Amino acid sequence: MTASQLVLEIPAWVDEVVAAFSQPLVDDEARMALTVRLSRENVARGGGPFGSTVFAEGRLLAAGVNLVLGSGFSIAHAEIVALMRAQAALGEASLNPPPLALFASTEPCCQCFGALVWAGVRRLVCGANTADAEAVGFDEGPKPEAWVRVLAQRGIVVEEGVLRADARAVLTDYLARGGRIYGKFPPSSSSGG
Amino acid sequence: MTASQLVLEIPAWVDEVVAAFSQPLVDDEARMALTVRLSRENVARGGGPFGSTVFAEGRLLAAGVNLVLGSGFSIAHAEIVALMRAQAALGEASLNPPPLALFASTEPCCQCFGALVWAGVRRLVCGANTADAEAVGFDEGPKPEAWVRVLAQRGIVVEEGVLRADARAVLTDYLARGGRIYGKFPPSSSSGG
Repeated sequence: MTASQLVLEIPAWVDEVVAAFSQPLVDDEARMALTVRLSRENVARGGGPFGSTVFAEGRLLAAGVNLVLGSGFSIAHAEIVALMRAQAALGEASLNPPPLALFASTEPCCQCFGALVWAGVRRLVCGANTADAEAVGFDEGPKPEAWVRVLAQRGIVVEEGVLRADARAVLTDYLARGGRIYGKFPPSSSSGG
Repeated sequence: MTASQLVLEIPAWVDEVVAAFSQPLVDDEARMALTVRLSRENVARGGGPFGSTVFAEGRLLAAGVNLVLGSGFSIAHAEIVALMRAQAALGEASLNPPPLALFASTEPCCQCFGALVWAGVRRLVCGANTADAEAVGFDEGPKPEAWVRVLAQRGIVVEEGVLRADARAVLTDYLARGGRIYGKFPPSSSSGG
């Protein structure tokens, strides 16, 4: 039997963390501080060390965390969760949205890099980078080599390294706790059936 | 208000088309024939011209079609729908699956290219290619230049051009019907807020 509905449950604590965040979300640093806070809170609850937020016209549209381990969906990276929630909030306008800013506590992987292109993101703000993620054992996957330039060519501005040290600390703590590194598939001669 | 659940509804006709498909799914051509059939049936119902299927150990695990227009989720490409349904069917084993074969009526875009890396796909079988999709106005987005080699380095085998003419005909028919080309965002100086 295959599912007639695919359901991704968003834990209630995600929006509680947002509501309890006292710093006004007026600039990139404050917005990234919230995004990193989400990544840290997710680790505390057994999730992967990644958070994401989406802003439009200066307002927070949606927040997300990595839900891969809880949901069993490999797609459920923080950025995807945040973008899908933003699109749910936008309703009819979701495929023709106002300019979106996507915040990622760690630079997007190959999947989220591709997904943000179709979501109407015009600005991507990153905390930790690929080297930071790989240093703790995560794999960011194959993005185009000049990925920042590739996005620029599509009118998507990338800001790197905002609160990088804070974002990286969450990754390091995850490793120190023995957090699970998922999404690794060894090269094999098995060809899939 | 942001959603506490993200729900992607799978139309009942998808599995009805699968059930009604009389050709035994014994080889790549037969499996692609079903995948292309799904893409065609989706167009007939107002959806995008893309279908996808996932096989494991010789058995069909899940089928998907592009649900972007119906759901408002830009992520809801056929491959994502099929992979998420396959993971739902696998349950506990979804993050450590048997070797999966992903069939795509058109070569995956940048998003689905990235997503399949994390899903445990070991073999990717494509019908139409990027040039075919671009010829009707779709944008496949920025994949690594040598994307087939990049996947091979990760142990993922790519077969291209299986029933390409049939798959391409669905794209061409979609264009002839005036089907909507979505996911285009003109380069702009607007930076997202």
